[in-house]
Order: sequence, then C-alpha cells, then structure tokens
Amino acid sequence: MSFNSFGHLFRVTTYGESHGVALGCVIDGCPPRLPISEAMIQGFLDRRKPGQSRFTTQRREPDAVRILSGVMADEAGGQLLTTGTPIHLMIENVDQRSKDYGEIKDKYRPGHADYAYDVKYGIRDYRGGGRSSARETAARVAAGAVARQVLPGVTVRGALVQMGPHKIDRSRWDWEAVDANPFFCPDPVAAVFFEEYLDGIRKAGSSIGAVIEVVAEGVQPGLGAPIYGKLDSDLAAAMMSINAVKGVEIGDGFAAAELGGEANADEMRMGNDGRPLFLSNHAGGILGGISTGQPVVVRFAVKPTSSILQERRTVDRYGHDTDIVTKGRHDPCVGIRAVPVGEAMMACVLADHLLRHRGQVGAPVAWPFEK
Amino acid sequence: MSFNSFGHLFRVTTYGESHGVALGCVIDGCPPRLPISEAMIQGFLDRRKPGQSRFTTQRREPDAVRILSGVMADEAGGQLLTTGTPIHLMIENVDQRSKDYGEIKDKYRPGHADYAYDVKYGIRDYRGGGRSSARETAARVAAGAVARQVLPGVTVRGALVQMGPHKIDRSRWDWEAVDANPFFCPDPVAAVFFEEYLDGIRKAGSSIGAVIEVVAEGVQPGLGAPIYGKLDSDLAAAMMSINAVKGVEIGDGFAAAELGGEANADEMRMGNDGRPLFLSNHAGGILGGISTGQPVVVRFAVKPTSSILQERRTVDRYGHDTDIVTKGRHDPCVGIRAVPVGEAMMACVLADHLLRHRGQVGAPVAWPFEK
Amino acid sequence: MSFNSFGHLFRVTTYGESHGVALGCVIDGCPPRLPISEAMIQGFLDRRKPGQSRFTTQRREPDAVRILSGVMADEAGGQLLTTGTPIHLMIENVDQRSKDYGEIKDKYRPGHADYAYDVKYGIRDYRGGGRSSARETAARVAAGAVARQVLPGVTVRGALVQMGPHKIDRSRWDWEAVDANPFFCPDPVAAVFFEEYLDGIRKAGSSIGAVIEVVAEGVQPGLGAPIYGKLDSDLAAAMMSINAVKGVEIGDGFAAAELGGEANADEMRMGNDGRPLFLSNHAGGILGGISTGQPVVVRFAVKPTSSILQERRTVDRYGHDTDIVTKGRHDPCVGIRAVPVGEAMMACVLADHLLRHRGQVGAPVAWPFEK
Amino acid sequence: MSFNSFGHLFRVTTYGESHGVALGCVIDGCPPRLPISEAMIQGFLDRRKPGQSRFTTQRREPDAVRILSGVMADEAGGQLLTTGTPIHLMIENVDQRSKDYGEIKDKYRPGHADYAYDVKYGIRDYRGGGRSSARETAARVAAGAVARQVLPGVTVRGALVQMGPHKIDRSRWDWEAVDANPFFCPDPVAAVFFEEYLDGIRKAGSSIGAVIEVVAEGVQPGLGAPIYGKLDSDLAAAMMSINAVKGVEIGDGFAAAELGGEANADEMRMGNDGRPLFLSNHAGGILGGISTGQPVVVRFAVKPTSSILQERRTVDRYGHDTDIVTKGRHDPCVGIRAVPVGEAMMACVLADHLLRHRGQVGAPVAWPFEK
Repeated sequence: MSFNSFGHLFRVTTYGESHGVALGCVIDGCPPRLPISEAMIQGFLDRRKPGQSRFTTQRREPDAVRILSGVMADEAGGQLLTTGTPIHLMIENVDQRSKDYGEIKDKYRPGHADYAYDVKYGIRDYRGGGRSSARETAARVAAGAVARQVLPGVTVRGALVQMGPHKIDRSRWDWEAVDANPFFCPDPVAAVFFEEYLDGIRKAGSSIGAVIEVVAEGVQPGLGAPIYGKLDSDLAAAMMSINAVKGVEIGDGFAAAELGGEANADEMRMGNDGRPLFLSNHAGGILGGISTGQPVVVRFAVKPTSSILQERRTVDRYGHDTDIVTKGRHDPCVGIRAVPVGEAMMACVLADHLLRHRGQVGAPVAWPFEK
Repeated sequence: MSFNSFGHLFRVTTYGESHGVALGCVIDGCPPRLPISEAMIQGFLDRRKPGQSRFTTQRREPDAVRILSGVMADEAGGQLLTTGTPIHLMIENVDQRSKDYGEIKDKYRPGHADYAYDVKYGIRDYRGGGRSSARETAARVAAGAVARQVLPGVTVRGALVQMGPHKIDRSRWDWEAVDANPFFCPDPVAAVFFEEYLDGIRKAGSSIGAVIEVVAEGVQPGLGAPIYGKLDSDLAAAMMSINAVKGVEIGDGFAAAELGGEANADEMRMGNDGRPLFLSNHAGGILGGISTGQPVVVRFAVKPTSSILQERRTVDRYGHDTDIVTKGRHDPCVGIRAVPVGEAMMACVLADHLLRHRGQVGAPVAWPFEK
Repeated sequence: MSFNSFGHLFRVTTYGESHGVALGCVIDGCPPRLPISEAMIQGFLDRRKPGQSRFTTQRREPDAVRILSGVMADEAGGQLLTTGTPIHLMIENVDQRSKDYGEIKDKYRPGHADYAYDVKYGIRDYRGGGRSSARETAARVAAGAVARQVLPGVTVRGALVQMGPHKIDRSRWDWEAVDANPFFCPDPVAAVFFEEYLDGIRKAGSSIGAVIEVVAEGVQPGLGAPIYGKLDSDLAAAMMSINAVKGVEIGDGFAAAELGGEANADEMRMGNDGRPLFLSNHAGGILGGISTGQPVVVRFAVKPTSSILQERRTVDRYGHDTDIVTKGRHDPCVGIRAVPVGEAMMACVLADHLLRHRGQVGAPVAWPFEK
Repeated sequence: MSFNSFGHLFRVTTYGESHGVALGCVIDGCPPRLPISEAMIQGFLDRRKPGQSRFTTQRREPDAVRILSGVMADEAGGQLLTTGTPIHLMIENVDQRSKDYGEIKDKYRPGHADYAYDVKYGIRDYRGGGRSSARETAARVAAGAVARQVLPGVTVRGALVQMGPHKIDRSRWDWEAVDANPFFCPDPVAAVFFEEYLDGIRKAGSSIGAVIEVVAEGVQPGLGAPIYGKLDSDLAAAMMSINAVKGVEIGDGFAAAELGGEANADEMRMGNDGRPLFLSNHAGGILGGISTGQPVVVRFAVKPTSSILQERRTVDRYGHDTDIVTKGRHDPCVGIRAVPVGEAMMACVLADHLLRHRGQVGAPVAWPFEK
C-alpha cells in the first residue's frame, strides 16, 4: 500500500475526486484471458451506488463504468478478455452540485479530513470532500469485480452485522436476506428494526456507526506470506483504508483477547476427502498470516457519518472559532454502502496473494499429506 | 509491506528463525547523522527480552544486539552516527533447545502456523516455530529504537489495558506504573490482580489473551497519505503483522460504531498558541488517514498463547488423527511482551511517514493559518 | 519500476493501447501547489505528436490532453494547482485505422513484440502493436511535463546526435537549432544532410536507427541513492524502457572503457562561489550513483523501426512459415520522436529522486564546506 | 530497485561497508525446497575474490560466506533446502587496513563517490570507500548463486570482451578459455596480450577500462513485463548499479543505431521441434521487453579504476584546492572482477522475472501454436 495504489502483483491505482470530471482505477498485473465486461462490473457498482433507498445519499450518480484499456475481444469476436496489460476503468461524475459546499470552503468539518488535508498540503479540494470523499470507493468496487475473476471457486460476501449498539442475531443469518433489504443485513428481523431505527436518526439530522463482516469461502490454503506480507496484515490495511473505518478484526478478533488457550485452539481432524478439517474457526481462516482453507472472516467498524445537521464547534482556515452545520446530501449510516466496498477489498487482497503465492511457490498447494 | 520488509522510505527487512544462528534486521533509508548505539538499542530490547519474570518464557536469551553496518564515528571520534546507508542489527541466538521440539516435527499444533507453513511451502522449520516464532519481534524492537531517533519530540509508549476479560480502570492510568510491574500495566491496582490471575493460568498450563494500547504524543499534523497510504491503514498492517494479533483499532475503534455523529465529532477551538485545539479525541489523532497533531492512539488484541499443556486434537503430516500437548518454554500471556513490539511498530510507521511527508511536501507543516 | 508504473515517490502509471479508446497516465505523489495546465502539458505533447513532418508517421492524432483529477483552482480562481492527490492525464485516440492491421493479426512481425506478447500472455492486442506501440510514450511526455514543475531551475533538453552511422559534429552543437529542424538535431549542417538521407530511406521503404542525448542542467548535487537506487541505474532503466532502445550510457559511457584512470578522472578545483568546480565531465554528472552538480548526460541507442516495406521471413501463430511486409503508417526513424520522450523520462527520474532525497535527508544539500 | 534492495518477488537487500565488521545480503521471496549450501555459494564467491592474481587488489579476504537463516535440512537430514523465508548470507571482513585511508578522510578522490556522498549525507565512511566500495559486490555474487537455483536449465556466463581499446576476436570465442586466464577472457590469444598490456598499466600506477558481456542461455520465452517492467529495462538498471559501470547494451546495442530495418530484423522460421527459430539475434533475446527464448545478451562498459598513483587535482572538505595520489591496494582493471558480478545480476533479474511471470500468468509458456 503506498499513496493511491495497493497490491503487489494485482495492483490497483485509483484517482479522482468527489466533484471532479471522473474517477476510476488502473489495474496493473491482472492475469490474461480472464473474461470481463462493463455489464459484469456494473452489477457490482450498482450495489454501492448512491440513491438506492432513502437511507443513502440522494446524489444521483449512475456510476456507469467504461473499460478503456487492457482488453481484447476473444477469437470468436465476442467476449472481452483481459490481455495482461493495464485495465483502466473510468466512471464519470454527473451530479456534482458544488454550490452545496460553499460554506465548508473555509471551515473545517469535525470528523472530516478537511483540516488534515489543509495542514498537510496547504491546499484541498473542498468540493464534497475532494479526494477524501467516499466516492473514491466506486473505483475499488470496480477493481474488486475484476479481482473476483482471478478467484474462480471463491465466494466473497459481506453483510452489516451491527448498527449503532444493535447487533444482529447470528442464529438468523441468511445470506439470501442480504440483498432483500436496504442495509445488506443478513438477519431479516433486524433489518425491519433497522428501517425504523435509521429513519429516526435520519429525520433527526444525525448519523450512526455500523460493523460490517466480510467472508471469503473457497480460499485455498497457503495464501499469505511471512511476517510483513501476512494475509491478515494486508486485509487489515485494506479495510482500514476504507473511509470512516476505525477498527478491523480477523476471526474472533477482540473477543480472542478474552479467551484461554484451550478455547481459542481450532482443533483438527482428518476429513473424508483426505484433507484436514478444522473443528472451529476462531482464527478466521488465517494462521501465521497464511490461509488455512477455512473461510476467511474479517469485520470492520465504521464510524458515524461526520456530516450531520447538528451544529458543531470548529475553526476556520483563518484561525477563527466558528460553528458549522453540514448540509448537503449524506448517508445517515455510511457503513451500509461500505459492505460492497469491503467485499471488493477482500477480493483484491486475495487476488494479489494468489498471484504472489504462485509466483513464489509455483504449485497451487503443497499438501503435506501427499509427499 | 511485502514479505519480510515494511516501510516505504524508512524500510525494515527482518530475517531469522527461533532456533537458527541469528536473527536481525536491515534498516534501509534511515536519515544520516542520527546518533545511535548498541547500548541505546539494548535498552529497548531488554524490555522485550524473555525470562524477565515468571510470566514470560524461561528461555535464556541475552538478546545482545550488534550494529554491523551503516554507522561511523563522529568527527570527535566518539558517538556513532548513522551514515544514510543500510544499518544491520544482529542478535545471535544462544539458548536453542531444539530437542524440546521433537514431537511437533510431525504434528500440527492448533492455533500455530505449523499446518499453514507446511501446506504453503512443503517444508518448515519446526524448531520453536521457526520463522513464525515471536522471536522475530526482537528485530522489530531493535528497528524501533532507531526509528525513535528519526522522531525527535515524539513520545511513543505502550501499555497492557486488558488481560482476558479484565479491563484496567483507565481513571487510574499512570505511565510511571507501566515499568513497575511485569505486565506493562498502567493501572497499579489491576497489576496486582493480574499477578494472581496469571499465576493461576500459568499453573493450570493454560494461557490467556490481552489487549495492548500504544500512544504516540508529539506527532506533527500532516503525516499520512491519501487512500492507500493512510497512517491508520499502515498502523493497522503493522500491528496485525505482530504474532497472535487478531484485531486493531484506532481511537474509539469498534466503540465508534455505537456512536452517533454528534458524539463522535471531535470539535475544535483555537488554542492560545494560534494552533487549533481538539476538544476530544475519538478519532485517535487521525482524520482522513492523516495525523491531526492529537495523540495517535492504537489498540490491538492478542490471542492467548497457542502453546498450552492441555491436550488438543490435531492431525499429523502423514494425514493421521492424533493429539498433542505443547511442552517447552512459553509465555502464559504472549500479549505482555507485545507491548514493546507495538511501540516499535508505531515508531517505525511514524518514521516512515515523516520521511514520506517531507519527501512529497517539503515543508514540515503547511499551517493554513499562516497563509 | 514494476509492470506499468515507475518511480518511488513521484510515481507514474500508464495505460492504453495504440488503437484503444484512450491512453494516459496517473501521477501519484506529486507535490502540492505546483501550477500545471492542459496548455502547458500540450506544448510538450505537440513536440512528440505524429504527423509533424514527412519523417514521422502520418497518423493524425491531435494528442489533446485533459487533466481529469488532482488539481484545484488557486484562491484567486485562476491557475490550476496540484493538490498532492493523483493526477490523471488522458489522451483520446481519434485516428485508429484497425483495418490496416488485418494481416498482422496472425503473423509475427520480425523485430516487433508480437511473438513475445503472444507466447507470454496467450493473447495480444495486434491493432497497431497494442500496448507495445510507441503511442504509449505520449503518456510519458505528459507526465514529464508535470515532473518539470517539480524541478525549478533545472533545464532538461534532448537532441538527436546520430542517425544510422552518421554522427553530428559536436563542435557545431547549438541548442537553438534543435527545434528548427524536424530531427531535433543540434547540428544545423547535419540536419540538412539528414533530410536528404532520411528521404532516401523512407522512399526505399526502409528505416534507420539513431542515438539520442539528453542533458539536465542545474541539477543539485546529492540526488541518487546508494547501490540499487543509483541515479544512473534509474536513468538506465527509464531510457531502456522506451520503445526500440537497445543501449544506454552515462557521460563518456562505452568510450570510458577505452580510457586510462588519469584521463577519466574529473579533477576538481574550488570555484569563486565557494563551490567546487569540475574540470571535465567524463562521469556525466554522476559519481557513486549520486549527482555531483555537473550536467547529467545520458545517451541512448534506438534501433531502426521494425515496420518496413521490405519482405521478411517469419512464422504465423498456427506454426507455419510465411513472409510479411509491414504496411501502415510508420516513422522511418523512430529515434526522432524519442527525443521528447527521453527528456520526459529524465525529468520524471530527477523529480522522483529529488523527493526521495529530501525525504531521507531533509536538507536540500549538505555542503561539506559549511560544516 | 530502491536504495539498497532490488527485485520484486526475488528481492535482494545488501548491507555493509568496505571496512566494516561484515557485509552480506538478505534474499526475500526465494522459492522453497531449493538445495543450497555454503560450499556452492563459495564457489561463485571465489571467482570474484580479491588477490587471485597480480591483476586484482592484494587485499586478502577469504570472503567466506555463512548461511544464517532461511534453510532447513531435508527429511534425510542432509542437504540444506530453502524454506521460503528470508535467507541471510553473511561475509565477515578480515583484512581491513583503515590506516591506508587516512589521507582520503578529508580529500575527495576524483572519479570516486567521496564528494557525492559527503554532499548528500553530510557524513561518509571514508575507509576504503565505505558503502561505495566494490566489496559490496560480494553480496551480489552470493545472491546470484541462490538465484541460479531458481533457474534450472538456464546457463549464465560472463566474459571480458574488451580491455581499453582492445577488443577480443569473437571468432576465437571459447567459453572454456574464460576460467583459464586471470581476465575471464574467452579469446585465448587476447588473454596473452592482456597479460602484458595490463602489467604495463599496473606498473605505471595507472588503470584501464573494460567491456563485459553476459549471456544467459536456456531462458524460457515470456519473461519480462510491459513497459516499465521490461526485462531489458531491469537488466539495464541491474548492470548500471554495479560500481564503475557507465554503459549498458542489449544485443547489438549501440551498433543497432547504425542498422537499417532489414538488417536489424531477426527473421523467423519454424524449427523441427515445433518451436520457432530465429535466424539471427540482433535483439539480444528480448523483444518488447519480453524474452523470446533466444540467448539473452547484455554488455556493459566499466570505467578505469579511479584509484591511481598519478597525482590528480582535487579539493578537500574544508574547501581548499589540493592534490591527491591514491595509494592502497587496487585493481588496475576493475572490469575483470565485474564478470562474476554481472553474471550474478543477470541471474537475480531472471529469477525475479521468472517468479513474476508465473505469478501473473500461471502457466510457464503460452505457446501460441498449441491453442
């Protein structure tokens, strides 16, 4: 991860601001001959797109993606295939309303990056938060759609598991439910509650935090690298790089701190297919930074949207005390739209580590039992 | 972060196994003319060193560091100064007892990296965990000692804030207390309790998890970079790369998910020195991935030591079900010795970002108020 | 340098194919508050643009650049300034004639990358050479224009110093002449000769190689880093990455192999300004990989354009022997348009090293005389 | 390439100074289960070792290498195998005579890095050139020995092809001759001449340049990556990073600038094995930055040793004009010992690109003929 790029072999560079002409990403190092299409990528973008319900910003952005390089029609002239060269995916901004942001030109919104950007660079694009806006995450979702093609047999799914202090009931977890409510919530009962709960927050001009869980199933064992290339270390960086994320955990995460060694150990037995079975998954599918073949489980905490209609105390860029009310079009719970973003980051990290693994080791898996 | 290196300009590469000849690190990109010495580095290593109390492994390692390159005596012939070339810090292993590990040669210890390494590489150094051993963290602590020299005016301190389910009372926080008990615990009352508590766990042949907090004070605003070079993203990767860490949070972390936007906003007022003051620090000193000048606050969860005397079910490398009891010399709470390691990682990440910031921006801080 | 990106702090990623929708670059890590504009960048692109004379390809591409991100109008609302976030520069292709390339779809043109791409990736964009086309160099020139803004006081200029076996007379070197002939030739007499010479080659359907020299004046001493970050090493990589380049030399280059130690030594004397003067510049401004303050001098050899109207023997992708004549619109001496490309690469490498230097060392120059 | 590391997946970091305690390298990313041993590496180091003949420095360094990490005995307990973790190779310095260098403490030797290091860092290790000494190349040779294990079936060999103005007769090229004379010269007749020629130079207290050629045979097609990851670009950087190198060329190199397109084209015909045959190798085995399966041919120019007994004009670090005679133990033609170093760099670059290729593409070669 460095500045505006991440990944080592499957490397994604993003660009663009909230109210600029366009945003997008360049994917470098993608394997050749993978089928991709604008329609396939668009499917993922539509899940993150604003304006899908009254619980997300009302900004109207179609988020229409164009593939501008790195593909070639297959021999039959039909399906686009990746060529191994850089893939540029671009999304034009169409619904900028920069006048909404006149007031924040000079005032620093608490909880936002305004002051930090100004004190670092001596200049900032204040229109909609500029580069620090969550609009950048559209580029991640587009990249994630390509990353999924690198991972046949792997299923990456995310869900909202907590809103404010309210956790879902995991015994009701139903992946089918996730796309059946505006919260990506896998607990249909909680989803009904969240609708009323978030309406109250929205109408009060306030906002609320959330916790998101992303699970990757079908991940081969052996992905990850020692010490500073650990799969969980890269996942932590990836999730923490998403706007408003303040915490990341793998498997049991912070709850593991409360466990004794007996309870935390994921015991093993040989399965019928000659592969080992884990009898639990406290580790979240990662030991020593390397995937074990179990589901990879990541959770991250998203703070409440900082743009609220309640007046807050702040300073302006001329050094004066002042107060601010952040108008404009905002998500009352920015965690909701972080679900497809978290999935995309998981897919990108796994794709990168798959390529890194086969680069170093060659063989897909060195099953010890077959030596 | 890639494989066994981390950092972009202040770049640390570590090598070595638990029972090999030596371990150490090469620091590349360190600024020139910084005073360092073996004694200064040793002081930090001694805090992490095993065998300091009955609560850490009884392996006897002096962890004596040698500076093998990258320094030159100053003109007066006395103080060693860095020269800007790679600094190699080496620590020889002296108390390997590889016979202790005969049984784990073929059996996979639950919770350890044994199976993951074997399935990835088709070979592993099983002696004491090999590369996946926490002995590697000695190299980090040595690097961290050098990183602190890059950060004049910055104080980096860590503390154990939770052991098992027992959290300290933050109202009793006393930095002086941290080095006055064997737990790096800032709450003297809790430290007394932990002594009895951990003795019980140790005698039962069990282990327990912990939560560590690291705070950096005096960090200039402006460190960090947009999107994938965020300071919090790099800190998350750094902490998650430490052995047994399963979760990382910045500022309020997961608790932020429970907050509304009003409560979470760190309001601002101008201070008497013409700099802005934050009225709270929910953000942990980082907004938009960039430091604000507030204390940078990171917490991470350490799972219980996986090596326990309780029998656990597992498989061996020939594909047979078996059971294992992990003998040897182990920490009952590996989180304790993670405190100086977490400090070191914080120092390395901050040093790297300081160099990156002045590389891109030149000036230390672009105070907006003085434009 | 990795795949489609180069630079460590001033990092350029390019994308796009000869006959795709668009090509361009994303510049990551550019310092903030530098003035840039489409007009300024366009000035450099126009020097590289095809169709400027009968000696370059007749493809009609305006190479009109658009700045799509990373800038903000200054406080007065006028000049665009960089913001420190990624700068995306895009150039749309407008004069693709893909039908010209039907024959090469299945045949491998000798000297081109056709076979190499196919054997690597199992797929290639054969239209105009796809990613391996010299059209990619437009993105480099655009990036170079921005890099120059990072280097106030530095002059980067290139010139064609040899065409085929014919070297210019260096005693007639006149930088003013360079833009007064279609060859970027600093020797006005040679330029007249080249016009007739290249006309003969062009009419014969052949092509010819060339040698380009790029000189950077005003470079501060101290740029470059030890061993694998040497300034000359990065320049060599940068120039060798340009299409059709087969050799790179610094200062005296291969001629230095013929010298004795006395002749090669650049002796020094103190100048009137209290700075040392070099009495010669065999080293090309670089010693030990670090700039000395003398002009940085690089030369590179460009092979003749591989697309010629003479029939050559080759094979096709079905494994049959065949012959090929490469029609289409080609430069008879592709080295000519490599001049602005070489300048751009020099500027990008110097900009990157300036940022890296001030990142590590802080102070611009550590004049030893003032200690 | 960045500072003191190079390679992307097969990554080598070196450390150490001419007169420090030790020098060495850490190899990160090496594939597992490759057999290596100190004896095997030592064989390569002995070819580079000083004091082998009267034509190299008389400093007595055994250059004895130790493997300090990253290996494990195989199951039979005999052969050491790489484990996929970092390999530390260390060489202790034993014959430092720092008093030889008293005079150069304050004076800048023309042609050396003395002034450049001082003006960059404000400090330098003047003893034997410190970090800029060619002793660092021992670490490269050690790394190259490991890299060769990554490349089964590939032969990497180097030779001195020119000394001063005297080129060898390539029609007499005999690889067997290379190790039969003290110059690594493949032309036995020229080797006899060089003996007398270099004796004259040595006795005169002077020095002379050389040109080295390195050839890799058996390289699979498809290594290299587009644009900024070109195989020739990485080779250029690698060779230019060797001490005293001033020029690099691939295949015909600068001679290609004199060719017409017909002469330069490497025509193709199908071979009896169903693979294409090239009828010439002007390209040096690389097209579009990607290997073609032909021998990879690189040449580099080494300037004369800057340490000579002839008095030269210079300045000291206090800003005074002075003169200098560089005593001590020096190679009269430093190009000779660059031969094994050039081989090592070729091996490292190829190993890195092999891993990068199989990371991105998976399959070893995508033979188009078999689709």
